[in-house]
Amino acid sequence: MSNGNILGEVLQVVGAGESHGPEMTTIVLGTPAGVDITQDAIQADLTRRRPGQSEFTTPRDEEDLGRITAGVFRGVSTGAPVCVIVPNTNTRGQDYESISGKFRPGHADVTMEMKYGFRDEGGGGRASFRTMISAVVGGSIAKLIVPQARFTTYVDQIGDIKAVVDGVPSLEEIERSPVRCPDPAASERMMELILDVKEQQDSIGGIIKFIIEDAGPNLGEPIFGKLNARMAAAMTAINATTAVEFGDGFGAALLRGSQYNDALLAGYEHEGILTATNHQGGTQGGITNGMPITGRVGFRPTSSIGAIQQTIDRAGDPTTIQIEGRHDPCVLPRAVPAVEGMAALVIADLTLLNRLSRI
Amino acid sequence: MSNGNILGEVLQVVGAGESHGPEMTTIVLGTPAGVDITQDAIQADLTRRRPGQSEFTTPRDEEDLGRITAGVFRGVSTGAPVCVIVPNTNTRGQDYESISGKFRPGHADVTMEMKYGFRDEGGGGRASFRTMISAVVGGSIAKLIVPQARFTTYVDQIGDIKAVVDGVPSLEEIERSPVRCPDPAASERMMELILDVKEQQDSIGGIIKFIIEDAGPNLGEPIFGKLNARMAAAMTAINATTAVEFGDGFGAALLRGSQYNDALLAGYEHEGILTATNHQGGTQGGITNGMPITGRVGFRPTSSIGAIQQTIDRAGDPTTIQIEGRHDPCVLPRAVPAVEGMAALVIADLTLLNRLSRI
Amino acid sequence: MSNGNILGEVLQVVGAGESHGPEMTTIVLGTPAGVDITQDAIQADLTRRRPGQSEFTTPRDEEDLGRITAGVFRGVSTGAPVCVIVPNTNTRGQDYESISGKFRPGHADVTMEMKYGFRDEGGGGRASFRTMISAVVGGSIAKLIVPQARFTTYVDQIGDIKAVVDGVPSLEEIERSPVRCPDPAASERMMELILDVKEQQDSIGGIIKFIIEDAGPNLGEPIFGKLNARMAAAMTAINATTAVEFGDGFGAALLRGSQYNDALLAGYEHEGILTATNHQGGTQGGITNGMPITGRVGFRPTSSIGAIQQTIDRAGDPTTIQIEGRHDPCVLPRAVPAVEGMAALVIADLTLLNRLSRI
Amino acid sequence: MSNGNILGEVLQVVGAGESHGPEMTTIVLGTPAGVDITQDAIQADLTRRRPGQSEFTTPRDEEDLGRITAGVFRGVSTGAPVCVIVPNTNTRGQDYESISGKFRPGHADVTMEMKYGFRDEGGGGRASFRTMISAVVGGSIAKLIVPQARFTTYVDQIGDIKAVVDGVPSLEEIERSPVRCPDPAASERMMELILDVKEQQDSIGGIIKFIIEDAGPNLGEPIFGKLNARMAAAMTAINATTAVEFGDGFGAALLRGSQYNDALLAGYEHEGILTATNHQGGTQGGITNGMPITGRVGFRPTSSIGAIQQTIDRAGDPTTIQIEGRHDPCVLPRAVPAVEGMAALVIADLTLLNRLSRI
Repeated sequence: MSNGNILGEVLQVVGAGESHGPEMTTIVLGTPAGVDITQDAIQADLTRRRPGQSEFTTPRDEEDLGRITAGVFRGVSTGAPVCVIVPNTNTRGQDYESISGKFRPGHADVTMEMKYGFRDEGGGGRASFRTMISAVVGGSIAKLIVPQARFTTYVDQIGDIKAVVDGVPSLEEIERSPVRCPDPAASERMMELILDVKEQQDSIGGIIKFIIEDAGPNLGEPIFGKLNARMAAAMTAINATTAVEFGDGFGAALLRGSQYNDALLAGYEHEGILTATNHQGGTQGGITNGMPITGRVGFRPTSSIGAIQQTIDRAGDPTTIQIEGRHDPCVLPRAVPAVEGMAALVIADLTLLNRLSRI
Repeated sequence: MSNGNILGEVLQVVGAGESHGPEMTTIVLGTPAGVDITQDAIQADLTRRRPGQSEFTTPRDEEDLGRITAGVFRGVSTGAPVCVIVPNTNTRGQDYESISGKFRPGHADVTMEMKYGFRDEGGGGRASFRTMISAVVGGSIAKLIVPQARFTTYVDQIGDIKAVVDGVPSLEEIERSPVRCPDPAASERMMELILDVKEQQDSIGGIIKFIIEDAGPNLGEPIFGKLNARMAAAMTAINATTAVEFGDGFGAALLRGSQYNDALLAGYEHEGILTATNHQGGTQGGITNGMPITGRVGFRPTSSIGAIQQTIDRAGDPTTIQIEGRHDPCVLPRAVPAVEGMAALVIADLTLLNRLSRI
Repeated sequence: MSNGNILGEVLQVVGAGESHGPEMTTIVLGTPAGVDITQDAIQADLTRRRPGQSEFTTPRDEEDLGRITAGVFRGVSTGAPVCVIVPNTNTRGQDYESISGKFRPGHADVTMEMKYGFRDEGGGGRASFRTMISAVVGGSIAKLIVPQARFTTYVDQIGDIKAVVDGVPSLEEIERSPVRCPDPAASERMMELILDVKEQQDSIGGIIKFIIEDAGPNLGEPIFGKLNARMAAAMTAINATTAVEFGDGFGAALLRGSQYNDALLAGYEHEGILTATNHQGGTQGGITNGMPITGRVGFRPTSSIGAIQQTIDRAGDPTTIQIEGRHDPCVLPRAVPAVEGMAALVIADLTLLNRLSRI
Repeated sequence: MSNGNILGEVLQVVGAGESHGPEMTTIVLGTPAGVDITQDAIQADLTRRRPGQSEFTTPRDEEDLGRITAGVFRGVSTGAPVCVIVPNTNTRGQDYESISGKFRPGHADVTMEMKYGFRDEGGGGRASFRTMISAVVGGSIAKLIVPQARFTTYVDQIGDIKAVVDGVPSLEEIERSPVRCPDPAASERMMELILDVKEQQDSIGGIIKFIIEDAGPNLGEPIFGKLNARMAAAMTAINATTAVEFGDGFGAALLRGSQYNDALLAGYEHEGILTATNHQGGTQGGITNGMPITGRVGFRPTSSIGAIQQTIDRAGDPTTIQIEGRHDPCVLPRAVPAVEGMAALVIADLTLLNRLSRI
């Protein structure tokens, strides 16, 4: 991780680029040789994240076309760093001019300025959600490294509207909903809520759920590289996140051991074990047991809202700010591929690392 | 982090030792030269974590006396690795003999055995909570590196009993309670609940809260080393954790931007900014703004319970297990110094890293 | 360093791109905010490395124009990753078609193919000297981070022709020579030798010397990150290197302590100490003492030669090979900026790391 | 490597302990589970490094008995960190009192004091050759991870006396010589030379050669983790080293490509290739080809000599110093196991890393 610019231990993602610069660069280090990598596989995930995809997201319209420039020879990874470039085609720096001397509440403006002495004012620079392109691109490649694993990620809650989902929904069920909630009734109400807060120039938070099936046992490196630790770090590196939990999560606080412990049913070795329940969310001692890995990630309401807010300017003097720009009233629909990308990156990294566990 | 044995980027903790081996070794790398480090400072934290401290914890009785063997010359750190040895004086491997061929539900037994091909059967080996000695020792040293920062950590909830705490409790208020809950009424009820589940040979989960004041602004390294990401990784590396949240955490899902955004009040630079509220828990864009850093960590009920449980043996065949040993009915009182240690390690590491942010 | 794609600890260089792909990407992580970085500063070093610069190097003609795409705002580094793209404008993959089924002796062809199962056949892929663009770009930025340090790098020997250099030559004295040897007489003879081996379709080795003045004391991290260790790793990561030495180097084997020990003359602290001699090449215990850091790097003769050579094909069967392509008869003139870049990267990285040595 | 205290990428050695403290601690991280590790295997190497082994080394007499305290269960590695403790039994801090205010020329005294503000004065603290215990212990474990590899390390030159060795000498041929030179005639003359310089209270430098057979192909991670880069870093992290070279090393400068290129003979895959000659020392493009890996490491004459030397004191004022203590007139005999340990650590680390190269 080092100075914060690298995610992962042996499969590593490095990103560069600002939201209002010429392009976003992602380099994935440690991709093993022999993986079939096509621009299409990467593009599918990029398109799920791209701005302007529906009326529930920012109107900033970007195609986010990824271009592989290194590490792939005739469609196959060579073992060298894989580089993917995504141009920024719709930058409107002038949107930010009127507010450049002030700090947007909730944003990284003030902390970036304090930490670095000044900041790239156009759209938040590296603090923009656009930097999550690296998680998405990296995640696409990661999924190709662990093709047996199935990643399911969806919006579980927006505001106080909670999805009711039975079992593991299909990608189709999720993508059919413009807000990526597979419960059709909840999806409808979420869309209404988002349009409502959008009209009020406000924003709204929510929770994304992830389920990882068939990732297999043995993932997680004691004692500081537990799957949960690695996954928690990746998830909370996503912009606007506030919380992460695994299995029953905070709900486990209420339970007794006799309720929470998952009884072991049968078999072990290649595919792992079966347990009668899955309160633990697929890990024991921070290592996957072969059961589905489950968790949830909390998101705050988007910082950029149209209301007049109290803030300070560069001199530290009180002032007010009204943010115009083009923003997401709710970031969750577009955050789904970022959560999924992070999940895939951690699983692929730990899968590779696990090759080192026995002589 | 690499293969899971190193925590931190420039201030790094490495641990070795099994719960039933001769001793636990902790090496802290990257301690700057010139820090006053005494055995007493470390011992105070070790004693808060030690087993056998009250009837609410495991009766396994260990003094956990730490001995500095390297990196300190005449009471001052030299810049070299600091090594602290804690002997294991109360190991009873035979407690585990009767169950050595079976996997304890909820424990790392089965995942360690699958991952490594066999396991150190005595008490869980590296999966034991005893490995958290490294977090405690490392945390003690970390606190000496950032002496201005004040760490407050306490039990916020056990089962369905929630503490009501106004402001930031003092260390005395916390330590006065054998379960480390500064709300006296809740503390009483928590103790009753623990004794109750203990009598039933069961266990119970809960939530620990941490508050870090005066750590200062500028901590956190975009984009993957956000304070939240680093803290989440450290916290979920603690045994038995299930969840972590910052500021309003999962509660932020319910809020609108106009409710959640913390208005900036005045001034910035050395000590950071003031905000009218602190929904964000002290960070913006993953970098501290100078306000208190707040968060909560969820813990599952301890795995080891006396009830007969369904499980499998090494051959994968169904069987039952009854765990005798000496266990914690509730790990939270002893987990408080581990959470605090992790918090301190992350703050000190990010404080050192921040020295590199400007030319 | 991890999987080999990252150089440096806190100032880190990551590269991507193949010699016959569309472009070479370099990302420099850990550049502190506030450094003035212009495309011109980077271009000056790139131009010294570019192919086709004289008749003594490969005729492959590339302008190697670098374009900064991230991490710099209005000419100043922001603290975010700095990305520089260098397009490949003169790729002739067809040159390699006739030999693609055979392994070039001395080249990485056979080892890349064994390690990764296949290889990017165009010009050597990541094994090409073109990947050293990352060292040059990274080095340019590194020099801006430590502006007080003066780096002098020149060709000290080609074949059996040794330069006689008194003191530290100026950049002008070095660059005046097309082979970058500041001894005019030796330079003449080196040029003759290179043209001679070129005519014979052969190649020739040599030695490059580096001198780093005013880098200051305190650089080097005991015990495995000694300046010498870090510098040796960086230098021997350059293609075609065979050896590295510091100060008297291998010559120290012949000396007695009473001859080799550098007597301390006077003063210490900010700029370091003065010693009567500098056999040690500027370090004591792997940490700089403030005297000039000196060393030499050995280079093998370029692998690509026009002569018919004995080799094997993909099936492992004996065959012969004759390499046409466009190659350097002697890589040293173009390796000078790579050596200098590596020197600067190590110095800047250790300078930043040294900020962490005291509380 | 981070702050200099970690050697290796996935098999990592961490050391702690000062030469005059209670004990030296080595932790080896990343040891795969299932390796047979006995105290005896480690002790054999420690004994080759221990002081007081002959009249050609320091008279400081230490048994250097290693004790495994973690990571090994019933003689087999568990995958957890392996910890080995070596007590310091013969510390005489008072030897250093008379010189504690002065800086020993050639030593790390002055650089440690400048870097850290003060220093552990007893015997050099972490700058002592005693810290190489970590390389030796780590190397012993590394050899058990790659049991097929054969490491041969010997003294090739002391002063101007060069060994003449045909082929690869046996361990017996090397160990039979008290100075670890397998050429009996040279060994005799080296012993005479060492006793001579010892009588003159002086010291002498030399060169150690290493040969690694059957390590196999595919070791080395482009582009910055070339085997040569990793090996060069490890070797020059050994105290008192001045130079390192591979294959023909600096001698390659004199050769033409037609002389230096090793012709490929036949076959490839599992054991690598055969080449007609081995000028390259077993690597192509920084990756092993299966031929023996060969190299040499230069050592300076030991810094501690009995002669009166010119130096400065803490105030920076000129003074003289005469070092009494108990020192090696020539460090090479005891450095042989350190060189071998470093070689083994790099080979084992790269062997494990290579497991990640293909899908």
